[in-house]
Amino acid sequence: MNSEEKTLVEIIDGNNQIDLAKYINYVSAPQAGAIATFSGTTRDTFEGKTVVELRYEAYVSMAIKNLKSICSAARSSWDLHSIAVAHRLGIVPVGETSVFVVVSATHRADALDACKFLIDELKASVPIWKKEVYSDGEVWKENLEFLERRLELGKDVGCCRRKIETAAHDKKSCCKPKVKVEEAID
Amino acid sequence: MNSEEKTLVEIIDGNNQIDLAKYINYVSAPQAGAIATFSGTTRDTFEGKTVVELRYEAYVSMAIKNLKSICSAARSSWDLHSIAVAHRLGIVPVGETSVFVVVSATHRADALDACKFLIDELKASVPIWKKEVYSDGEVWKENLEFLERRLELGKDVGCCRRKIETAAHDKKSCCKPKVKVEEAID
Repeated sequence: MNSEEKTLVEIIDGNNQIDLAKYINYVSAPQAGAIATFSGTTRDTFEGKTVVELRYEAYVSMAIKNLKSICSAARSSWDLHSIAVAHRLGIVPVGETSVFVVVSATHRADALDACKFLIDELKASVPIWKKEVYSDGEVWKENLEFLERRLELGKDVGCCRRKIETAAHDKKSCCKPKVKVEEAID
Repeated sequence: MNSEEKTLVEIIDGNNQIDLAKYINYVSAPQAGAIATFSGTTRDTFEGKTVVELRYEAYVSMAIKNLKSICSAARSSWDLHSIAVAHRLGIVPVGETSVFVVVSATHRADALDACKFLIDELKASVPIWKKEVYSDGEVWKENLEFLERRLELGKDVGCCRRKIETAAHDKKSCCKPKVKVEEAID
């Protein structure tokens, strides 16, 4: 068990499953009374279509940079101990985890609210894309939240590093400069 | 992997650790794209005092009944797949998990909000008490939230089974008849 505060961000390639226990253990500490986690897993249907698998691609260096920035923003808004964020790339079959967020804190409200913030921000602002492979075809899906965030480009949402409201659904938060990343995708 | 919706409530006695993987696996399903968890663990200090361990006691039959009621309330408020809640009794050393809540859902907002609701309600209304064992003494602690909820006894908070607002901190929610349980504690 570790005692110092830590942050871990990992992009996992090569069809390796995300080891949930590893990340939970990473954030565990004698000082932390609360651990909140979120797992995003491939589900078998999307809008009525049968999903066979998801495939993720990322602009990896930018994704890691953005994830670290989001973690810093979370630390500035809540009293946290340790954070771990892992995202898998490549094929993720139905039922397996594509993204895992774990947060430890002294108190539960901090852990729970920061966990929600981290996954919401990841979906909205980190350059990771998924291809949904259906039984009758496949399509690259632009995450709707990511699209919405990019539509804010040029708008003065003026919230970097500002204290983030815990009522996450009502806020317009951002944690880094907006980046146009289309040219990074093959 | 299981496909049907399920609810599991367990009170674990006899110094057995809570097997997080077992409960995460329990709620996993091809239909669920999101799994949120909360672990409450024994931390090493409380209000500046060194904590050696916590000891939990419960009015077990009522605790299980209340937990099932809270799970039903969560299902009526969010679109959930499966729920598991486990609480350990007896001695829980520093760093080990005393309570674990796991929720799976199609979408992440449902899983995250229901997970927060479940642990908040558990703390506020389920008859489980803890003794904090310090390096220089020990004391039974009445959970502050539980006490606050009991002070509402007799007030018409009128919210059983009513749709619960997701802004959990602003609501006055309840899920069952209030029960005076002092006589159940030795």
